[in-house]
Amino acid sequence: MKVAQVLHMNGGVGDASYANNSSVQQKVIRLTKRIREEGIRSLYCSTLPKSLAIADLGCSSGPNTLFVVSELIKTVEKLCRQLNHKSPEYKVFLNDLPGNDFNNIFKSLDTFKEKLCDEMEGRIGPCYFSGVPGSFYGRVFPNRSLHFVHSSYSLQWLSKVPEGLDNNKGNIYLNRTSPSNVVRAYYDQFQRDFCLFLKCRAEELVEGGRMVLTFLGRRNDDPCSKDGCYIWELMATALNDMVSEGIIKEEEVDSFNIPQYTPSPSEVKLEVLKEGSFCMKCLEVSEVNWNVFDDWNAAEFESERCDSVGDGGYNVAQCMRAVAEPLLVSHFGEDIIQEVFSRYQQILADRMSKEKTKFINVTILLTKKT
Amino acid sequence: MKVAQVLHMNGGVGDASYANNSSVQQKVIRLTKRIREEGIRSLYCSTLPKSLAIADLGCSSGPNTLFVVSELIKTVEKLCRQLNHKSPEYKVFLNDLPGNDFNNIFKSLDTFKEKLCDEMEGRIGPCYFSGVPGSFYGRVFPNRSLHFVHSSYSLQWLSKVPEGLDNNKGNIYLNRTSPSNVVRAYYDQFQRDFCLFLKCRAEELVEGGRMVLTFLGRRNDDPCSKDGCYIWELMATALNDMVSEGIIKEEEVDSFNIPQYTPSPSEVKLEVLKEGSFCMKCLEVSEVNWNVFDDWNAAEFESERCDSVGDGGYNVAQCMRAVAEPLLVSHFGEDIIQEVFSRYQQILADRMSKEKTKFINVTILLTKKT
Repeated sequence: MKVAQVLHMNGGVGDASYANNSSVQQKVIRLTKRIREEGIRSLYCSTLPKSLAIADLGCSSGPNTLFVVSELIKTVEKLCRQLNHKSPEYKVFLNDLPGNDFNNIFKSLDTFKEKLCDEMEGRIGPCYFSGVPGSFYGRVFPNRSLHFVHSSYSLQWLSKVPEGLDNNKGNIYLNRTSPSNVVRAYYDQFQRDFCLFLKCRAEELVEGGRMVLTFLGRRNDDPCSKDGCYIWELMATALNDMVSEGIIKEEEVDSFNIPQYTPSPSEVKLEVLKEGSFCMKCLEVSEVNWNVFDDWNAAEFESERCDSVGDGGYNVAQCMRAVAEPLLVSHFGEDIIQEVFSRYQQILADRMSKEKTKFINVTILLTKKT
Repeated sequence: MKVAQVLHMNGGVGDASYANNSSVQQKVIRLTKRIREEGIRSLYCSTLPKSLAIADLGCSSGPNTLFVVSELIKTVEKLCRQLNHKSPEYKVFLNDLPGNDFNNIFKSLDTFKEKLCDEMEGRIGPCYFSGVPGSFYGRVFPNRSLHFVHSSYSLQWLSKVPEGLDNNKGNIYLNRTSPSNVVRAYYDQFQRDFCLFLKCRAEELVEGGRMVLTFLGRRNDDPCSKDGCYIWELMATALNDMVSEGIIKEEEVDSFNIPQYTPSPSEVKLEVLKEGSFCMKCLEVSEVNWNVFDDWNAAEFESERCDSVGDGGYNVAQCMRAVAEPLLVSHFGEDIIQEVFSRYQQILADRMSKEKTKFINVTILLTKKT
């Protein structure tokens, strides 16, 4: 499987689309607002750019795609008013893999710009948007062309499924039963990928440029701890149940592995130190319930979604489906998808009724060294 | 009807897609190769850019989209070898209205880059591609950010249907029977739109930057001459036949007008002179048969298309459908589309068997004044 060709959030705006099932990711974006504000403010004040180039890497397609950008622009505009500066021109680059639904983003841009302009009472620097397809584990932008890079819930995706996972039987990601060579293979791949990411961005950012990166990660030092693995373990349970009923072949599950690694804070920190191009200004760990509606402030809800608050199993299964369906379809085919997610939903609902289940987020603010 | 929201070539890769029905546009691109080469060579030699920013405006989605870009890059690479220069870095901006199928382009980019690299034996400057949605009758790019602008078969589209066409009864574009106020309204809209286009590009191009623009146009000074109008007149015939059979209401056809203007060489020239930011280095008029396969060199055919050579009515109807279907659907609804194009095909076949029918192309090379 070529991850860069297969991996993408479900497109469109239907029931199974990422656009309609990305509340977890939205909550994470809200939780990490402070660190982004610190990043963009310190960037602006230290470089005073006339033209400010912002890139969102792994932008996906849906309500979250433009949310961060609008927040960043508003922060800069407010700063400019406080400081009595002329607004800069904004160059906004929306990046994701080529399978992402860019059409959907592009159709919403005019409305977005009008709304942003209204919210800022018409006083806002000119904004130029573009879509930039390509893997961020390689160069995506020209040398020194960016001031601010943001990425949320994308960097846990690896550039490929690690090699040498043949004996990760019955699992689809790391798990307490994963052999040590499997754990090592996943960690090695994470190190290689994240190091390459940092090297590429170091070339693309101007000196003093900032990055705010949020990983789906873990608190625990053990990469096989529940923190990052449990959500996939329960999907493996659904698949293994279907194996035992003869619906899927055992070899198919054995050979399926999710190209993801959920790093710990210290693993993230270590790579930044080793690579050497960036100073880490800040590291934060936060968490969000699997069923994001459980701890969501009522005022944050979009009204039409209130009816789904109660059904945690459904919400979480849909969230994971929006993210993982293309990977599953590429390996198992279309036919079993409905059944997998229906069983997964039941399993999730059962577990969530019995224990507290949370995603862990690791967020860092980096500054490109001069 | 909001043209910027409705107008787009048919997306995807199906039978009625623009991607599969754009041979006329491809032929036009081949016919205008020399003038583009002159433009990019003189640009390179006069500015020697380390980073070369190329924009294709109205790029659409299909085999033509990246053809011009690859040709431009190859020309520059050959020049660099002759002159023993280091290759520049290429920034390629693909622009079209937000309804364009950018997803389709983006999925083909990796293969395109590999092929281009192979053709140049691996020696080619780094290429950065992005998609930029938005109407070119407004600012699309930052100040002085472009070196070379190309646009083929897009600028005949107006920003909107001209106002005051109420008495253009039975017609859907200009026609010998169009009242003089209708002719004036179309010409005024062309002047306003093209002037605005030139003003915006003048801000976006560097000094000495080049533009090569090809319009679907006409030779004749009379805007109601057959040159530009006949293809639409025959579509109006199909629609009026359906009115007389009670399938469509007369008012529906009376209120439908194509947002297009096919200018003459002197009309194009006049606007460039009036606007004043550009020197016109070259103006060429060329022509291409409605059924492009009639005058196509056999070697230029893609083999799988050979079977359709004979059926001119079908080819031309499909070409026009790929271009105009979204406009028709927006006004008349989906239901009548198949019938309209089936009748149109018959009418086209009949006319083409009796007379020589050609599209006229007006191509100009402009240089931004210093």
